[in-house]
Amino acid sequence: MSLPTILICFDTDLQPSVFDAVVAADAGVEHLFRHGGVQPAEVRDLVYGAMFTRAPEDLKKTAVFIGGQDVAAGEELLQQTTACFFGPMRVSVMLDPNGANTTAAAAVLAARKHVALEGAVATVLAATGPVGRRVVRLLARENMHVRVASRRRQRAEEVCTEIRQAVPEASLQPCQTSNEAETASAVDGAQVIVAAGAPGVELLADQTRRQCGQLAVAIDLSAVPPAGIGGIDPQDKAVRRDNHVCYGAIGVGGTKMKIHKAAIKRLFESNTLVLDADEIYAIGKQI
Amino acid sequence: MSLPTILICFDTDLQPSVFDAVVAADAGVEHLFRHGGVQPAEVRDLVYGAMFTRAPEDLKKTAVFIGGQDVAAGEELLQQTTACFFGPMRVSVMLDPNGANTTAAAAVLAARKHVALEGAVATVLAATGPVGRRVVRLLARENMHVRVASRRRQRAEEVCTEIRQAVPEASLQPCQTSNEAETASAVDGAQVIVAAGAPGVELLADQTRRQCGQLAVAIDLSAVPPAGIGGIDPQDKAVRRDNHVCYGAIGVGGTKMKIHKAAIKRLFESNTLVLDADEIYAIGKQI
Amino acid sequence: MSLPTILICFDTDLQPSVFDAVVAADAGVEHLFRHGGVQPAEVRDLVYGAMFTRAPEDLKKTAVFIGGQDVAAGEELLQQTTACFFGPMRVSVMLDPNGANTTAAAAVLAARKHVALEGAVATVLAATGPVGRRVVRLLARENMHVRVASRRRQRAEEVCTEIRQAVPEASLQPCQTSNEAETASAVDGAQVIVAAGAPGVELLADQTRRQCGQLAVAIDLSAVPPAGIGGIDPQDKAVRRDNHVCYGAIGVGGTKMKIHKAAIKRLFESNTLVLDADEIYAIGKQI
Repeated sequence: MSLPTILICFDTDLQPSVFDAVVAADAGVEHLFRHGGVQPAEVRDLVYGAMFTRAPEDLKKTAVFIGGQDVAAGEELLQQTTACFFGPMRVSVMLDPNGANTTAAAAVLAARKHVALEGAVATVLAATGPVGRRVVRLLARENMHVRVASRRRQRAEEVCTEIRQAVPEASLQPCQTSNEAETASAVDGAQVIVAAGAPGVELLADQTRRQCGQLAVAIDLSAVPPAGIGGIDPQDKAVRRDNHVCYGAIGVGGTKMKIHKAAIKRLFESNTLVLDADEIYAIGKQI
Repeated sequence: MSLPTILICFDTDLQPSVFDAVVAADAGVEHLFRHGGVQPAEVRDLVYGAMFTRAPEDLKKTAVFIGGQDVAAGEELLQQTTACFFGPMRVSVMLDPNGANTTAAAAVLAARKHVALEGAVATVLAATGPVGRRVVRLLARENMHVRVASRRRQRAEEVCTEIRQAVPEASLQPCQTSNEAETASAVDGAQVIVAAGAPGVELLADQTRRQCGQLAVAIDLSAVPPAGIGGIDPQDKAVRRDNHVCYGAIGVGGTKMKIHKAAIKRLFESNTLVLDADEIYAIGKQI
Repeated sequence: MSLPTILICFDTDLQPSVFDAVVAADAGVEHLFRHGGVQPAEVRDLVYGAMFTRAPEDLKKTAVFIGGQDVAAGEELLQQTTACFFGPMRVSVMLDPNGANTTAAAAVLAARKHVALEGAVATVLAATGPVGRRVVRLLARENMHVRVASRRRQRAEEVCTEIRQAVPEASLQPCQTSNEAETASAVDGAQVIVAAGAPGVELLADQTRRQCGQLAVAIDLSAVPPAGIGGIDPQDKAVRRDNHVCYGAIGVGGTKMKIHKAAIKRLFESNTLVLDADEIYAIGKQI
C-alpha cells in the first residue's frame, strides 16, 4: 500500500492559515496536520514526529510548511526545523510566511517577461520589509543593478549588507526615500520598479511614475487602496499604462498561486528540499 | 483533476465540535479545516483564505460551517463571514451553533407530519432561547398562530418584535408563563406545543398536558431529565400518549441528523448559499 | 456508500502529537480530528459527538486515541472517555500517552524472543514511572518473578500494591536501588533486565551488567545518552554483548511502531475495544 502524502503546517498565527491549507489540498496533499500559534520551543517534538515515523525511503511523502503573518517568526521556525535533521533523517520543508517567498518570486517573474534583467537597473521601494528583501535578493541573483530604497538610509544599508552575505556578487545601492524628491531620484533611469510596502501606503506618486522615461515594468504588491504606486490598479496584469507595463497585487496573484502550488508538489518528490526565496523562484522559472 | 471539497469549520468553543465534524465527513466532505475558539476579528483573514484560493467557478467546492455552543456568538461569526463577500467572490456558509437550526427545523417538520399547520395554533415554551426563537419563526412562516411563551412577558414581546421584522405577516401572541396556571392558559386550545427550554427544567406539567383537549402534537427538545414536558420520554418518536402524538429530543434527533447532512451536501452545489433557519428548514422539507 | 474511518485524537499537550497522527494516517485512517490541550472537563462533549453521530452498527468506523507526554493526564482522559459510554453507544479507544503502552509492549516482546518468560526472574529498573509500571504488569502477567526497583523502596512497594490489584497472582518483589551495590543486588540472578528510566540517567553501570551471570536479555528504553544501562547503544537490536542479548530504545522502536499501527487498525474492527497496556501487548503478540 502506498503511503499517503502528509503536509505538517506550522503557523505562527493562532488560527492557522486557510489560504495555505486550501492551496495544499489543491496541490493534492492527502493529509494536512495544521498547527497554530507554534512556538520555537515546540518545533523539535513536532519535527521528530515527522522524522521518526516513516522509513527513510518514505520520508519524501512527509513535508513541513511554515506560514503565518510574522515573517521573522516563520524564519525562526525554519531554523528550528532544519536543526532537527541529521543524515537521511529529514523531510522537505517550505517557508512562505505571509506569502512572502511566492509573492517575491511572482513579482520577479512578472518583470522578467518584459525586461532582460541582466545588467538592467531595478528600484525596490520599501525594500527592507520581508517581501522587499526577497525581491532584492532575487533581482540581484539575476545580475541586475538593484537600488535598495527605504525611508531610512541606515535600514537600506543594513539590507544591502545582509544580502551581500547571501549573494556576494550582488550590485546593490542603498537609497533613502524619505520624500518624493528622493524617491524620484531613486527611480530615475530604472527599467523595473517594485513597490513592496505596507497596505494603503503610497510609495511613488502617479506623476513621478509617468516621468520615468526608462521604465519598462512597474509592479505594485499592495492590494489595499491607495496603491503603493500611483495609477496602478490591483487588478493590473501586464496592463500598458503610459510607456510601460503595470502589474498590481492581484495581477501578480495568479502567478504567485501557481508557484505556491508547484512548490507544494515539489516537496513530495524528495525529502531533502529546503524551499526558501531562491528555491521557490527557481521553481517558478520552470512553470 | 477535480478539486476536493473543503469545509472550513469556525467554532466558538475552544475545542471544535466533533459532532459537526463527523456529520460533515459522513456527508462526503474530503477536507475539514477546523478552527476552535474563533473570535470575530479572526474571521476576515480566514474567509479571505477561502475566497481567494480558487477560481470563481470552483468556489462551490469550498464552504464554511459555523458552530459552537454559544448561538449568539455564532450569529456574529456569520455576519463577519458574509461581510467579506463581494461579487462572485464568496463561498456558501451554514450556521448551526448548538444544532439550533437543524433542531428547530426537525421539530417543525415533526409537527407538520401530524397537523395541517396553516391557521392552526401553536405554543412555543421557552420561546426566547436560540432554538425557541427559530421554532417560532418557522411556525410563523407556515402561517400558524403562534403563542410565544416566556417566564417574563417583556422578553416574549421582544421576541415577537424581532420575528415580525423577519416575517411581517406573522401572527404572534406573547404569553407570560411564570406559573403553571399561566402555562395552562398559554397551551389551552393549542394543536401544537413545542418546549425549547434548558436541559432539566420542566416547563409543562404532565397533568396540564393531559388536559389539552385540542392538542395533536407535543414536542420536547430537552434530552436531560426531568423532561421539559411531563410524561414525554426523550426517545418518543410519534408515540401516541393520551390523545396526541409525542416526540422527545432523541426522537427528533434522527430527522435533525438527516437535515444536517443534507444541508452540508447542499453547500457544495453552489457558492452563493447562506443557510440559516429558513433555508435549513426548506432543505428539511425536501428530504 | 461506506462511511469513512475517523480517529479522534485527544492530546494533553497543547500541540497534538505529529508522531501519533502520522502513524494513524499510515494505518489507513481516513479522517483525523486532532485536539490539543484537552482538559478532562472537555471530554464529554467531544465523546458525545463521537457516540451520537452514527448508527450503532457504524460506530466501529469511529475511534478515539489518547496521547500526550503526561501519562497520568492521559489516563484521566481515558476514564472520562469510557465513563460516557452506555449500552451499544460507545466507540473503541486506545491509550498510548508518550508511547508508554506500545513501548512497554515492544520491550516485553523483545525479551520474549530470547527467554522463556514463565517462572524466570526479571528486574525492572525505574519501575515506578509510567513505562516501568506497564513493563512490570506485562511481565507479571507472563508469570515472571518481577523485581520492582526504584531509588525509594516505598515507591516500589506502592507500585507492587497497585499491580497486585490488576494481577492478583503477580509475583512481585520491591527493591530499593539507591546506590550501585543495591542495584547489583537487584539484578543479581535476573534473566531479564529492563531499564525504563528518564532520558540521560544511567541506572545500571556497564561493569555491573557484565557481571550478571544469568542475564539473557538487557533492554534499555532510554534513547538519550548516557544510556540507562551502561554499554548498550540505542541502536542495539538483539546485539550480543558479553554473554547476553542487548536492545536499545531505537532497536525496540521498530517493533513499537508495528504494534502501534496494528492497534490503530484494530480499533476499527469493533466499537467495544479499550486498548490499554494488556490489550496492546496482546495485539503485539499476534503480529
